[in-house]
Amino acid sequence: MTQRMRSVFLLTDFGIADPFVGIVKAVVHRIAPDAPLFDLTHSIEPQNVLHAAVVLEDSVPHLPGDAVVCAVVDPGVGGARRAIAARIADRMLVAPNNGLLGPLLAPSPESVVHVIEPSDLVRPGDSATFHGRDVFAPAAALLARGEPLERLGPRIHHAKPLDFPEILTEGDALVLTVLVCDRFGNVALNLRREETAALLGWDPERAALHLEDGTVLRGLRRTYGDASRDEPLMYWNSAGRLEVAVNYGSAAARFRLAPGTPVRLVVTPTA
Amino acid sequence: MTQRMRSVFLLTDFGIADPFVGIVKAVVHRIAPDAPLFDLTHSIEPQNVLHAAVVLEDSVPHLPGDAVVCAVVDPGVGGARRAIAARIADRMLVAPNNGLLGPLLAPSPESVVHVIEPSDLVRPGDSATFHGRDVFAPAAALLARGEPLERLGPRIHHAKPLDFPEILTEGDALVLTVLVCDRFGNVALNLRREETAALLGWDPERAALHLEDGTVLRGLRRTYGDASRDEPLMYWNSAGRLEVAVNYGSAAARFRLAPGTPVRLVVTPTA
Amino acid sequence: MTQRMRSVFLLTDFGIADPFVGIVKAVVHRIAPDAPLFDLTHSIEPQNVLHAAVVLEDSVPHLPGDAVVCAVVDPGVGGARRAIAARIADRMLVAPNNGLLGPLLAPSPESVVHVIEPSDLVRPGDSATFHGRDVFAPAAALLARGEPLERLGPRIHHAKPLDFPEILTEGDALVLTVLVCDRFGNVALNLRREETAALLGWDPERAALHLEDGTVLRGLRRTYGDASRDEPLMYWNSAGRLEVAVNYGSAAARFRLAPGTPVRLVVTPTA
Repeated sequence: MTQRMRSVFLLTDFGIADPFVGIVKAVVHRIAPDAPLFDLTHSIEPQNVLHAAVVLEDSVPHLPGDAVVCAVVDPGVGGARRAIAARIADRMLVAPNNGLLGPLLAPSPESVVHVIEPSDLVRPGDSATFHGRDVFAPAAALLARGEPLERLGPRIHHAKPLDFPEILTEGDALVLTVLVCDRFGNVALNLRREETAALLGWDPERAALHLEDGTVLRGLRRTYGDASRDEPLMYWNSAGRLEVAVNYGSAAARFRLAPGTPVRLVVTPTA
Repeated sequence: MTQRMRSVFLLTDFGIADPFVGIVKAVVHRIAPDAPLFDLTHSIEPQNVLHAAVVLEDSVPHLPGDAVVCAVVDPGVGGARRAIAARIADRMLVAPNNGLLGPLLAPSPESVVHVIEPSDLVRPGDSATFHGRDVFAPAAALLARGEPLERLGPRIHHAKPLDFPEILTEGDALVLTVLVCDRFGNVALNLRREETAALLGWDPERAALHLEDGTVLRGLRRTYGDASRDEPLMYWNSAGRLEVAVNYGSAAARFRLAPGTPVRLVVTPTA
Repeated sequence: MTQRMRSVFLLTDFGIADPFVGIVKAVVHRIAPDAPLFDLTHSIEPQNVLHAAVVLEDSVPHLPGDAVVCAVVDPGVGGARRAIAARIADRMLVAPNNGLLGPLLAPSPESVVHVIEPSDLVRPGDSATFHGRDVFAPAAALLARGEPLERLGPRIHHAKPLDFPEILTEGDALVLTVLVCDRFGNVALNLRREETAALLGWDPERAALHLEDGTVLRGLRRTYGDASRDEPLMYWNSAGRLEVAVNYGSAAARFRLAPGTPVRLVVTPTA
């Protein structure tokens, strides 16, 4: 009786205009033919490791408990950065060691990280510009068919952390940063629901978000329809991040908030 | 001996830049791990239920007879609209009750519609803004692994119909509406082949389509190559809708015809 | 005991905004329900057979040895061009007979080509504008479930070759042509690594590439990081083609190099 292969979830900045993703899948499929393959997204802004790390952090909790993640946003491909493979609980992840896995590894002290070394299947020398094909795909496939991390290379004790935008405090205000704008123009900020009480000591239900054009959003809503048509609102998004939207509109366009770029937003407790 | 799981086909307005589709697939896959998963499209214009309904109507006849469709274009997410699940012959469909399934349900008096209610797997309370993940994905997965509609919630007798653009009559002319423009700039109109004789009593082979810039298209062609390079033509498209194209060009761009927006087109019988 | 079905890899110019790809997959899946389905890309420039042929040539070596490729870029759909199916070693390919398979067939004298004729499953008459659905999908599915080429139609002895841009010689210079620009703005040229010594008698390590704005690139690099930030470089890409990039930038944008369009580039041996 054969064991079910682990599912492989892909996240890259390869886009879908080129055959890169299809080739990566073909390589995984050749090595692990029964592993189901899924796309998280391939539309990470090219070489934007922060964008990728945020999307990955929001996605991983919903993946199967034994999923393999193959995450490739890799501006240093072919250079000195290492390729790594990590285990967090029973999930496996392969990625360049550039901070991409940082937000997942940081709160998981029991996680294990190994470097990925050249082997008969993992061949970084085949092309110095497409390690998605030659390193990360075969490494993910080996994990999908049940090989242990040790098969890929020796354990290391520190993966590179992510350079994540900090929340700054200015008097009574917090200065937040836009992390991601989604297709609908909804804008996610670097503040998570579970941080607000414990870390920051304020109640967002009684907060006001000041946007640069003078708009002030007071109180948290549940969903878009809690605002009038074209009215802006803030709420905890489905990943638990503070998010700004416009009902039936785009907050990103209306308030000129850009994905990945730091934007000055001020949160003050209401009087 | 286990039964093959039903295949799940997804149609949303989520786009592919964000991880939403990947998360929806992960949720389906966790609940129904052997169900094959396919994308119809995720590029429905955001919140455009008409666009989604037309694309769905054109696609469903080609799906496996026991397919499950998970269709999420849901501007009212988290609000008062219900989530529904329908069976048409042996195909299953889950969607918000906002008209999206209207064109499929209307001509199928034997169809059955149930509401989807909260349960251990269907959890609309987890996030008020991502029922694709928390409601529609688990509902589709339950159907894919063979659960009956009754498992999701009680039967209802009327789903919301779609507000579909009517064909108007002005003297000898019909005023049609652009439904969808595809990647090639081909423009589908709200007139179906089977309607022309029965409903309208005219012969499109002898009709002339008047476009706003004065161009008149006479007679139906079979395919693009029946027109000269850069010549416009009309024909029955692969879903049986009247369509306008330009051979090796874009009818949408050339005649400024927009997807989803009403556009005045006049059909007159030739003399 | 049943045999594993062959995997099917799709390459089209259908884009992903419309349901065309999903419908093609549904048709394959109905006929060959256990065949794994993968996308190479659907973003081929509409009707650009050269673009498709280059992407296909770069992808096929990485596919499983028994893969089935369904390639549909078909400006002549519904017209006089034939649909063909080919076998190269144990890989199978279906495509319109318009040159798309040319670069794969040309160096494979042992390849076999058959025409695809109408049958109970292959129905070119269903729609003259969507043979992806009615001809190529069912033909690919039949091959995926193990039917021989003979099942599709009779053998022919010459498929249409591709009109591929030639490398021209002007004095000591070679005039190359841009083939493809990828998502990152990297620009692939019509010169392959294995051609340089055998066919051209020069050593690219000692060559200089002259771009129209006066920029001269000297010597081959291995990867992006071998150049400074914003510095242009040339290297053999992961498919073995000469490629121009800008580290952390877009060579296509900076040097106005367009995918598929002929661009004058001069290679001269260094003194």
